[in-house]
Amino acid sequence: MPSAFSFAVLATDGRARLGELHTPHGVVQTPVFMPVGTQGSVKATHHRDLEEAGAQIILGNTYHLYLRPGDQLIARRGGLHRFIGWPHPILTDSGGYQVFSLAERRKIDEQGAEFRSHLDGSLHRLSPESAVDIQARLGSDIAMVLDECLAYPASRNETAQSMERSVRWAERCRARFLDIHDGGGRDVDPTNRGQAQFGIVQGGVFQDLRDQSAGATIAIRFDGYAIGGLSVGEPIDVMYAVVADTVRRLPADRPRYLMGAGTPEDLVECVARGIDMFDCVLPTRNARNGQLFTSEGRINIKNARYAEDEGPVDPACDCYTCRTHSRAYLRHLYLAGEMTAGSLNTLHNLTFYLDTMRRIREAISLRTFDKFRQEFLRSASRLSLDS
Amino acid sequence: MPSAFSFAVLATDGRARLGELHTPHGVVQTPVFMPVGTQGSVKATHHRDLEEAGAQIILGNTYHLYLRPGDQLIARRGGLHRFIGWPHPILTDSGGYQVFSLAERRKIDEQGAEFRSHLDGSLHRLSPESAVDIQARLGSDIAMVLDECLAYPASRNETAQSMERSVRWAERCRARFLDIHDGGGRDVDPTNRGQAQFGIVQGGVFQDLRDQSAGATIAIRFDGYAIGGLSVGEPIDVMYAVVADTVRRLPADRPRYLMGAGTPEDLVECVARGIDMFDCVLPTRNARNGQLFTSEGRINIKNARYAEDEGPVDPACDCYTCRTHSRAYLRHLYLAGEMTAGSLNTLHNLTFYLDTMRRIREAISLRTFDKFRQEFLRSASRLSLDS
Repeated sequence: MPSAFSFAVLATDGRARLGELHTPHGVVQTPVFMPVGTQGSVKATHHRDLEEAGAQIILGNTYHLYLRPGDQLIARRGGLHRFIGWPHPILTDSGGYQVFSLAERRKIDEQGAEFRSHLDGSLHRLSPESAVDIQARLGSDIAMVLDECLAYPASRNETAQSMERSVRWAERCRARFLDIHDGGGRDVDPTNRGQAQFGIVQGGVFQDLRDQSAGATIAIRFDGYAIGGLSVGEPIDVMYAVVADTVRRLPADRPRYLMGAGTPEDLVECVARGIDMFDCVLPTRNARNGQLFTSEGRINIKNARYAEDEGPVDPACDCYTCRTHSRAYLRHLYLAGEMTAGSLNTLHNLTFYLDTMRRIREAISLRTFDKFRQEFLRSASRLSLDS
Repeated sequence: MPSAFSFAVLATDGRARLGELHTPHGVVQTPVFMPVGTQGSVKATHHRDLEEAGAQIILGNTYHLYLRPGDQLIARRGGLHRFIGWPHPILTDSGGYQVFSLAERRKIDEQGAEFRSHLDGSLHRLSPESAVDIQARLGSDIAMVLDECLAYPASRNETAQSMERSVRWAERCRARFLDIHDGGGRDVDPTNRGQAQFGIVQGGVFQDLRDQSAGATIAIRFDGYAIGGLSVGEPIDVMYAVVADTVRRLPADRPRYLMGAGTPEDLVECVARGIDMFDCVLPTRNARNGQLFTSEGRINIKNARYAEDEGPVDPACDCYTCRTHSRAYLRHLYLAGEMTAGSLNTLHNLTFYLDTMRRIREAISLRTFDKFRQEFLRSASRLSLDS
């Protein structure tokens, strides 16, 4: 199978790695943070503002796009990149996380999941094979396998059974993926021939299950490996420990993606443990709720203390919001319910996240990452300015 | 009184005029459309996007800004321009229109209006004097007098009495304005020493009352004159006739502002009758509801016919939305409830309005306005593409 996808580690500093992902839609410098564009739009943000903030790759949610406007429609329009007008790389999840979150609206068995749409109650099935098919039609640069997502906490036994099912699903996903991309006469016409596929290591907080999952998943031979099932409520030290131990099981020549994380501190700490890729709704969702990340800690823009504060959100930030507007004005926009509160705040938070990743990459290349990390965590320790 | 405000007519074509408003925050080419920035933000639009769309001057609503964040706070922060980060000209209304719209929540007498805030029910008074004071604190480049706004239809007698009260209020507004700006020891410290003040001609659809109002208002000697009380439900031909007849009563060397109008066709038709300035929520509000103005008529982006339409909103438009996105994607964003639907649509509609004004100015300077007008109205006649 010809593939436009490749990964190279350019430098290391401790366990932290500087790398490059090559995809059909361009090169991604790692470590990288991927803003979440659930429905084909990073909420409250125009693509050009994302580019300005330094976004290299965004994430699309298969569950949402499958339901609306539909993967078939998107495929007829030439794939997700073309449909949404974003010419840069895109990663899609498998849809599993959203389906599992539907709680009473879904049933899971070995074949996959049966669920009712949150939009109209209509009945749908998601299987390992259909998750691959949908993503092939969307034409993302990186597709994820369908895995089973457990709620935290789960017993060792539940976690083991679920992990084993995820491995069986991963095998089916890989088989289907190779079948489609080898052009074997399927009814699925992929809109991105250079699409890559990542496996996902599960196993909850049980390291022997993580090891077992890693071994079995690596044996299937994916283009990259994700760590799933973290950032779901476990203590932060447990998460860091699982990341550190699991990374050691992953091949050094493949990208490592920690799904759904996290705070700015989580990014720094998990880069220190060898992670290359992150995604999280935190910067965008919190922005719309008025919580802003700054080099001096987090602030809540609705706080009365900012009513007449003429300073920018973050004196160290060069984003359009910080260059143009005061905390006083942003507080006013938030309290007045203006849509521009959401978009200006989002632009700042994404800039903070993406600029943090840029600084991380710079520090690794200079082999000063440990110093950067210590200084960053000192400022992050003031993260509750307003609480 | 020293004033940085002046107006010059540079060319005419029929009754249409090409002009220049000089204000403390820059020059405005007329005829001009002013996007409405009710609460200090043109809804769903960043200032730099407004600049890109060609906005020269925006409108702020005194009622909203007085209640939140408050004119005193804005004055302490250096005035409205500085508070919101918009360095270009701003016009403020008097607050009267919003207060009169409160219906059962307000009482009017000769002194002014007593009303309850739509935010918290608190009791406030707005008088001709306080409307001047608030705008002096906001520091807009152009302030409007407080006038009485009648609902349409109103009897001749009601209209006459209301118009006469508006004239009395205009005299009080002018006296207060001159008092403040001559620096006569008031407790009001204006944040814009070069502020101008416009009078408003009332009189409903009764031309003799309009004539009487124009005469009395001009006698007070304002920096410019508005036509109020139109675009409130009267037939379009009546509006055009009142505009044409009223403009003839206004001095040729002062700017003429038609308040609250209108559709793109209204702009062209009223420029043809001698109007220089317009404001309206139509392009911004309709954008958020999915109605888009194009060179080929209006479209409703939620219409199923656009589900797979790869074309831009308007092939003749060069805005970011039209350069980047298809009708199919914009329809998806609208149906998915994404905030970017509102902001992308707004950017397009404002560009259409502002570009129409630019083309009007060009046509006047080339003395081809009548030809432009005929062609524009032919395309506008297809305005119900989707209805």
